Amino acid sequence: MPDDKTALVISAHSADFVWRGGGAIALHRAMGYAVTVVCLSYGERGESAKLWKQDGMTLEKVKTARRTEAENAAAELGVTDIRFFDVGDYPLDLGPDTRDRMVDVIREVQPRWMMTHSKWDPYNTDHMNTMRFTLDCRMVAQAWGHNPGQKVLGAPQLYLFEPHQTEQMGWTPDVFLDITEVWDRKWAAIQCMQGQEHLWSYYRNVAENRANHLRRNSGGQAGGRAAKYAEGFQTVFPRTVDALE
Amino acid sequence: MPDDKTALVISAHSADFVWRGGGAIALHRAMGYAVTVVCLSYGERGESAKLWKQDGMTLEKVKTARRTEAENAAAELGVTDIRFFDVGDYPLDLGPDTRDRMVDVIREVQPRWMMTHSKWDPYNTDHMNTMRFTLDCRMVAQAWGHNPGQKVLGAPQLYLFEPHQTEQMGWTPDVFLDITEVWDRKWAAIQCMQGQEHLWSYYRNVAENRANHLRRNSGGQAGGRAAKYAEGFQTVFPRTVDALE
Amino acid sequence: MPDDKTALVISAHSADFVWRGGGAIALHRAMGYAVTVVCLSYGERGESAKLWKQDGMTLEKVKTARRTEAENAAAELGVTDIRFFDVGDYPLDLGPDTRDRMVDVIREVQPRWMMTHSKWDPYNTDHMNTMRFTLDCRMVAQAWGHNPGQKVLGAPQLYLFEPHQTEQMGWTPDVFLDITEVWDRKWAAIQCMQGQEHLWSYYRNVAENRANHLRRNSGGQAGGRAAKYAEGFQTVFPRTVDALE
Amino acid sequence: MPDDKTALVISAHSADFVWRGGGAIALHRAMGYAVTVVCLSYGERGESAKLWKQDGMTLEKVKTARRTEAENAAAELGVTDIRFFDVGDYPLDLGPDTRDRMVDVIREVQPRWMMTHSKWDPYNTDHMNTMRFTLDCRMVAQAWGHNPGQKVLGAPQLYLFEPHQTEQMGWTPDVFLDITEVWDRKWAAIQCMQGQEHLWSYYRNVAENRANHLRRNSGGQAGGRAAKYAEGFQTVFPRTVDALE
Amino acid sequence: MPDDKTALVISAHSADFVWRGGGAIALHRAMGYAVTVVCLSYGERGESAKLWKQDGMTLEKVKTARRTEAENAAAELGVTDIRFFDVGDYPLDLGPDTRDRMVDVIREVQPRWMMTHSKWDPYNTDHMNTMRFTLDCRMVAQAWGHNPGQKVLGAPQLYLFEPHQTEQMGWTPDVFLDITEVWDRKWAAIQCMQGQEHLWSYYRNVAENRANHLRRNSGGQAGGRAAKYAEGFQTVFPRTVDALE
Amino acid sequence: MPDDKTALVISAHSADFVWRGGGAIALHRAMGYAVTVVCLSYGERGESAKLWKQDGMTLEKVKTARRTEAENAAAELGVTDIRFFDVGDYPLDLGPDTRDRMVDVIREVQPRWMMTHSKWDPYNTDHMNTMRFTLDCRMVAQAWGHNPGQKVLGAPQLYLFEPHQTEQMGWTPDVFLDITEVWDRKWAAIQCMQGQEHLWSYYRNVAENRANHLRRNSGGQAGGRAAKYAEGFQTVFPRTVDALE
Repeated sequence: MPDDKTALVISAHSADFVWRGGGAIALHRAMGYAVTVVCLSYGERGESAKLWKQDGMTLEKVKTARRTEAENAAAELGVTDIRFFDVGDYPLDLGPDTRDRMVDVIREVQPRWMMTHSKWDPYNTDHMNTMRFTLDCRMVAQAWGHNPGQKVLGAPQLYLFEPHQTEQMGWTPDVFLDITEVWDRKWAAIQCMQGQEHLWSYYRNVAENRANHLRRNSGGQAGGRAAKYAEGFQTVFPRTVDALE
Repeated sequence: MPDDKTALVISAHSADFVWRGGGAIALHRAMGYAVTVVCLSYGERGESAKLWKQDGMTLEKVKTARRTEAENAAAELGVTDIRFFDVGDYPLDLGPDTRDRMVDVIREVQPRWMMTHSKWDPYNTDHMNTMRFTLDCRMVAQAWGHNPGQKVLGAPQLYLFEPHQTEQMGWTPDVFLDITEVWDRKWAAIQCMQGQEHLWSYYRNVAENRANHLRRNSGGQAGGRAAKYAEGFQTVFPRTVDALE
Repeated sequence: MPDDKTALVISAHSADFVWRGGGAIALHRAMGYAVTVVCLSYGERGESAKLWKQDGMTLEKVKTARRTEAENAAAELGVTDIRFFDVGDYPLDLGPDTRDRMVDVIREVQPRWMMTHSKWDPYNTDHMNTMRFTLDCRMVAQAWGHNPGQKVLGAPQLYLFEPHQTEQMGWTPDVFLDITEVWDRKWAAIQCMQGQEHLWSYYRNVAENRANHLRRNSGGQAGGRAAKYAEGFQTVFPRTVDALE
Repeated sequence: MPDDKTALVISAHSADFVWRGGGAIALHRAMGYAVTVVCLSYGERGESAKLWKQDGMTLEKVKTARRTEAENAAAELGVTDIRFFDVGDYPLDLGPDTRDRMVDVIREVQPRWMMTHSKWDPYNTDHMNTMRFTLDCRMVAQAWGHNPGQKVLGAPQLYLFEPHQTEQMGWTPDVFLDITEVWDRKWAAIQCMQGQEHLWSYYRNVAENRANHLRRNSGGQAGGRAAKYAEGFQTVFPRTVDALE
Repeated sequence: MPDDKTALVISAHSADFVWRGGGAIALHRAMGYAVTVVCLSYGERGESAKLWKQDGMTLEKVKTARRTEAENAAAELGVTDIRFFDVGDYPLDLGPDTRDRMVDVIREVQPRWMMTHSKWDPYNTDHMNTMRFTLDCRMVAQAWGHNPGQKVLGAPQLYLFEPHQTEQMGWTPDVFLDITEVWDRKWAAIQCMQGQEHLWSYYRNVAENRANHLRRNSGGQAGGRAAKYAEGFQTVFPRTVDALE
Repeated sequence: MPDDKTALVISAHSADFVWRGGGAIALHRAMGYAVTVVCLSYGERGESAKLWKQDGMTLEKVKTARRTEAENAAAELGVTDIRFFDVGDYPLDLGPDTRDRMVDVIREVQPRWMMTHSKWDPYNTDHMNTMRFTLDCRMVAQAWGHNPGQKVLGAPQLYLFEPHQTEQMGWTPDVFLDITEVWDRKWAAIQCMQGQEHLWSYYRNVAENRANHLRRNSGGQAGGRAAKYAEGFQTVFPRTVDALE
């Protein structure tokens, strides 16, 4: 494992990283990690219904508004490195140019771990396409013959953050992360998402209930942890360890 | 998580814990864990073909021979607490008495982690029945109303060790454990299994190839670990963590 | 489909029907359904930790307390037919006697639909055993040669209500039921469960978030329903219809 | 749910809608639904073997013949709105232009339900690509920022009609529709497919056997429906309901 | 592989072997195989609705009638060795006595291949219990220490024959067997099942449609076989071969 | 099935056919099959780390070196028809031109069986993309309207050879092929892969352990075959047979 504390979050639309991984981001920032967030799009067409219902709205206005929201949310989470690829949404343009750009970021960041969307999402193919795209980019970043001379990527874990309607996505969390100490930051970040206020309480409920799962899996009534808020993740690759726990 | 360094391995037949989890056992013994091994049977009917091909063999002779092998193997792994339930094999008797006995052991040991067989095994239903049986016992051991006054079990992880013909069993490892430093002990333990010599090189190959997987998943040619021998395990329950890695 | 409005809910422990199907029960009671609830056990050993932590507790006291809670909850839901099989828990005794007793109830009730636990639950094997038991009983109840002369069962749908930690159970809801109008009743029933207060807000969060899913699947921002509380269910058998919807 | 009785069927090749969903189409036409059928291709290269075995055949002749068959079949089913995208087959061209065109149709039709191919088909990747394409189009049609001003799509169910060799496709029907009253129309439509006469009796057998399944699932010998012909469908999204049935 | 041409079919109820494997049985009888059929029950309670609807019916009368039908069907298929275990149905008694009895039969027959029910069947748990029971028995029959001195079993393939409603059972055929030349025998055997006349045409349709699949998978319009009737099977174990085909 | 003894192996990178299918290739060559190997790329960027670590390395040098290795390995296996598509790797260019080229090869070869990569591979998306690409090409090659006049393809089996880390790929072998008699050739071919020496012993271990599986599945201690080396494959399509074995 690399010594540097680095992480990379790849978000299909500009708000995804907040709902789904905001706690993990804030927590690792608090632990001194450099966390880079890439928003492939602003979610300007598909996830900005509230803005589009206003008179005189344009694509640029929506993008600007969504970008500002995402920047504010990132600031609340302590993120100083957020990048907007602006490749369009519904659908995303994930062609060769976007891939090369992402591979460059991966190699620059050399993340200890990566995070993105679930493998399947029949409601939102941008999400599942981003997961496949991330696998493509991780593979290319590991290739010694791609831009020889650059530092190649090792084998960082890829965490899949929580999708909406988890069961429909075939997503199963195998890690619960205690985010109690940074919940205030995540809640503040969530409230930056003015365009999707209908989701605020939804993701607070999620955080509370994932904490219930965390307590249960750490011992329950016979000594479980006292977490109040948690996030769940699904890993893609096996872990390599020196001891079982 | 409990502070005590304890672990419990539940083996359907007397040799299973050696092939499948011998490295993990030896490694945790070396780290100071108290590791309890329960052999539900000696594998006396189903996994002792070589003995039965000898003249004048009886069930008791087979059981004695297999028990001695298992005790020797346990000693090589550093295990001082091995228990033989002697419930018969092909099939195992996993009725209420066996369950109560196992629950008592679980509560006595209070394992930080548990280990047993895979969920599915069409070749050997003893194996999959043991997995289901272990879930039953873990559940009962957690019940405050079962033998009130005894200390109830927390929520230890259940590791499923490597079955023969992994793909047919639907078993997928999500943890690779580096057992390089204790390989000599596992190899010595394996060689105690005189009745199944045809499996020695098989499991050495497995250990070498799992180390390849461990190297690959820890960085590969870009910085992976130098493990020479490894074991793989599948977890049943989610992990609860303070940080992603 | 039968003309009579009847339903049967099979609950492994005395509180399960409340958390998981209380809304469906109250709603159908309000629509004039006769809803029969069978509690196989009181959850006296495995799901009464709070009671067992009190001094001088006995199995009978726990069972009495849990039964009272369940009766109170049933009353809040409008249920007048709740039956306690008292077969013990952790594990349940689901042998031939219990089966025959349940088949008699099924044939007596002639349910238009049935409801029980999920197919898989590694935390709580009582739950998954109840699901398999229910399939057994449904099959026997359909047999013309079982107690000839009794009215045989048709082919009622079997709904699997929501387990704790849905993703770990491989449970996927394919029906969302709007329970907004009976939420007050479910909430009152939940509060009857004095022994498991730690689950109250958990299941309120579930109800709120399932309503979000219901809104999304009925049209979302383009005309979805205004449900505030919902329950999800997984069906076991195909539906038979006269039109698609 | 929208009040308008509308439906949209997306067929990879010009005959698919007949074999797989002809009964549903005719039935809903008889109930007053406006049913739009889009044939992405004529199946001119991949599903017209009989024609290509004739001397002097050309691509245009095949397309004309297949179009005529499809139009005749549509007429038998009562369909007045059939559209041919003519994007080629084996493989289909499902690029951005085709997608935009389909999104326009979806928004124009505002279907109460949609219907297309199965998720997996190793024999015919056109089929599974069409399913993924349909998910893409449904998503874009729901986006408020795609062609702002157009009416956005709600959340119609997506039915997957029956593939050839269902088990190889991982397709599992969860709805059986009684098409007895319109069977004559479906049979007439099937007979329009002069190029694939070898499939006529195959799909009659399917309809008869699906009726057996419908009878079984609606009560069997204890009161099942008397359907003689049926079609099966797999749903992609959960249903939202006011009552269980 | 053993040289002897032997096969063993394990049928939960007395008619199952006819609908599901009658073609394979007749074909291998015609090839000189000794085929043993074991009917665990007569299906007297659960699969004899037509008989039970008659006045004055008793369990013994039903069993006698069903046995006669099965014997007649077996004779049509050329089977001279059919055995009735008479362990009751709905549910079957598959306890230790039944298991020992079956193991004795397996060792006596030394089948080159075995055949039984699918792994999952939510409609009919007798079927899936028989599959698990067969795995248990196969395992015990292979054990050198079970009744030492008897000839132990090798590793025969286990074929799972076609269940009713294949998709609901998660059954996927990976072998299609051409039964055209013995179809007359299977059809004659089917017609022996006077109690289940409603299934005759159903299984004729199945045989015709499986032949379509066989033709398609052997080359289709580019040289496929001319089979008119076929049966499908799912294998449990990998094949061992000298060449790919 | 075609009479000609022909086979086609589609390898994403130039070494894949050696590790994964070298035994099958050599064995069928020895049986007189004409085996064509297509290497889509040289693995020049992604699978040539050792070369890229040398000073002054260029893409052309890597490609030349890898090509030479592959040609040498092919010669050891007895292959005289190896073709290099040189479409680049990490990622492969699998667009329309590559597809048309591959379809031409398929039709030219008219393979009795085909072989390629597994369906899923999160480490190496080139591998899974090749599997999907192969399905596309097989489909087009079967189309009577694609390049009319060419001989269309029948329905050859598609074997998926063994990926690295089988369980992570969801790959399950259902055929074990005895390659003992050609092991020397495969081992010689493996040693041609100078750039990936770290994989030599890995794949020897695989071959030895697959032979263990072959022995077990052909009878084990009760008469299994004496294979020392084997390869495993997963089939995509059902087999069509005249007898069960």
